[in-house]
Amino acid sequence: MTGILYGVGVGPGAPDLVTVRAVAVLRRAPVIAAPRPAAGGTSLALRIARAAAGEVAGQETLELTFPMTRDPEARRTARAAAVEAIRSRLDDGKDVAFVTEGDPLVYSTFLDLLASSAAVDGRVVVVPGVSSITAVAAAARVPLADGDDALAVLPAPRALGDLPRLVAGFETLVLLKAGRHLAALRDALAAAGLLERAWVVAEASRPGERIARLADHVDVPPGYFTAVIVRTRAPEAR
Amino acid sequence: MTGILYGVGVGPGAPDLVTVRAVAVLRRAPVIAAPRPAAGGTSLALRIARAAAGEVAGQETLELTFPMTRDPEARRTARAAAVEAIRSRLDDGKDVAFVTEGDPLVYSTFLDLLASSAAVDGRVVVVPGVSSITAVAAAARVPLADGDDALAVLPAPRALGDLPRLVAGFETLVLLKAGRHLAALRDALAAAGLLERAWVVAEASRPGERIARLADHVDVPPGYFTAVIVRTRAPEAR
Repeated sequence: MTGILYGVGVGPGAPDLVTVRAVAVLRRAPVIAAPRPAAGGTSLALRIARAAAGEVAGQETLELTFPMTRDPEARRTARAAAVEAIRSRLDDGKDVAFVTEGDPLVYSTFLDLLASSAAVDGRVVVVPGVSSITAVAAAARVPLADGDDALAVLPAPRALGDLPRLVAGFETLVLLKAGRHLAALRDALAAAGLLERAWVVAEASRPGERIARLADHVDVPPGYFTAVIVRTRAPEAR
Repeated sequence: MTGILYGVGVGPGAPDLVTVRAVAVLRRAPVIAAPRPAAGGTSLALRIARAAAGEVAGQETLELTFPMTRDPEARRTARAAAVEAIRSRLDDGKDVAFVTEGDPLVYSTFLDLLASSAAVDGRVVVVPGVSSITAVAAAARVPLADGDDALAVLPAPRALGDLPRLVAGFETLVLLKAGRHLAALRDALAAAGLLERAWVVAEASRPGERIARLADHVDVPPGYFTAVIVRTRAPEAR
């Protein structure tokens, strides 16, 4: 009997934004697998998981390196090693809880494993988590979607190339990976008359959390998780 | 000292998809406020909250009617009554936890209160939850966004009027309120060559959960929470 591979979303950072189900899976799984950006580096998802669920005696911690690179060969090699390490545990009949920040299906390394799930050759269960998208909105207290609204979520550089169309079609834009693009976003949103309707959120739910209007001078340290949220319409009279 | 108004997302339906923070707020708040669609009706969010956090001795339950209507006058009247009921508790120095299915900022009645928060005249805190968006994806085990992907979330009827543009601009579409539009979606997605890349999910994470390919015959009871998720591109070789 092979084990089950769980993709466990541990939420945006605050340990108490983990779900009750995630805590239960993390306490019961004999193996906790966690992605890290470099060998010897640390996994933020693992830190959140430990803070939320503690360390369980006898539980194996399997840190897997997913290098932050676009080089497909380096990614393939890393992914193959991760799949192999997980498969050997599943073949031993052990369940593996693979932890990811936010939600496992939103910009997560778990997607690499899901794409290889034939290779993993076992049952796969996804435990959804509070995503960075809702965490950013909660920090800024800005609606994501109301009534018949449409919501678009995409990386900031990609949005910059297509802003007028996005503004025309969507009531809310959530622009991720925005830290290095704040000046360009400020210019583009000012040109669209939307600067007063845009907020910057860095490190949502984490100790360094910062929330500001994009119109204000905003300086975000490099490496911070940073998003811009834009409400493209004036609110209706209620 | 006025109380704090908490908007508490209780997740998509399964009681163990509530966060640890939501459980803590629900146990500590002297007043649990919950939206219901009709006087005498029941609140699904309240049922989830009770299943997750239990009933606390001495805690007040304040059921507030938000009629399912587009009539602005009826909505205004209901909202004013809800705001007034909440404000009187806050003025007494009591914290109020207003529960919503999913996340408080995603298609939720809490947005009515947030828009009236000047009237509520107190501090407002949003506790994000697992949204229906990630719950639907988790049920179907379909990625929401990978790499530089863009994600669009909108009501199905609105998407039907704009499908080619959405498909061109977004790798993933999550189409909500889809129950009565499955046949039209099937036709439109077949015409776009995407029928094999679309899934129907009803009652994600709830006892009546159903997952099917849209290509298959799908019959969803009226009143079910139903979404269609579409991956618009073939997966890249990994």
